[in-house]
Amino acid sequence: MRQRIAASPVARLATVDAGGRPHLVPITFVLDGGTLYFAVDAKPKRTTDLKRLRNIAANPAVCVLVDHYEDDWTRLWWVRVDGTARVVADGSEADRAVDLLVRRHPQYRRARPAGPVVAISIIRLSGWSPT
Amino acid sequence: MRQRIAASPVARLATVDAGGRPHLVPITFVLDGGTLYFAVDAKPKRTTDLKRLRNIAANPAVCVLVDHYEDDWTRLWWVRVDGTARVVADGSEADRAVDLLVRRHPQYRRARPAGPVVAISIIRLSGWSPT
Repeated sequence: MRQRIAASPVARLATVDAGGRPHLVPITFVLDGGTLYFAVDAKPKRTTDLKRLRNIAANPAVCVLVDHYEDDWTRLWWVRVDGTARVVADGSEADRAVDLLVRRHPQYRRARPAGPVVAISIIRLSGWSPT
Repeated sequence: MRQRIAASPVARLATVDAGGRPHLVPITFVLDGGTLYFAVDAKPKRTTDLKRLRNIAANPAVCVLVDHYEDDWTRLWWVRVDGTARVVADGSEADRAVDLLVRRHPQYRRARPAGPVVAISIIRLSGWSPT
């Protein structure tokens, strides 16, 4: 399951707002031991400006899904991460996470993400495939 | 945005459990006017047996994401559906939704989904692309 996560360039992040409503965005990320990091591309005026960051502040429970689709449904699979998210306050941890993100995603080399970094501590991995 | 949803064979569904924790699964679906339908492949013993169905019973607020990823990040896009979900109790509505699903996904012809059908009433569509 970790290999499938590590090999996927994109995942989908679900957060929940204070009213209990879910919110989804695609994320690029990097896996580092028991932590999954993603970064916000541009610095919002305040770290609470973006819906995903507001939600994490209100409710740190998050879910991340990596999945594979093709028309041959015997080859589908998904891996789900249940975790707890926090905005990384420590500058050196954030710098290190962004270094890992830039190393993994060459697209970030042209525009290193300038916004807050979020760390998701992995509580549980679940996976499914039909075979 | 509707065209992008209608052209995507797969989406990701976020539900929220009674404790406020989000849950993600990939779904195949069909769009019918202001409603998005998906079906559970196999009939669970009770309609509350599956986590996604338990969550919808506890909290009908759901979010569905369709997105496109490629290595050229200028070509990314996503469309998000915020909606309200219900398990379809009416037999004729469920039959019609499964007919639409089978028409859209030939894979269902070999094994017509036998489980509950969920209807998501679309409250809002949001989309993003960098260009």
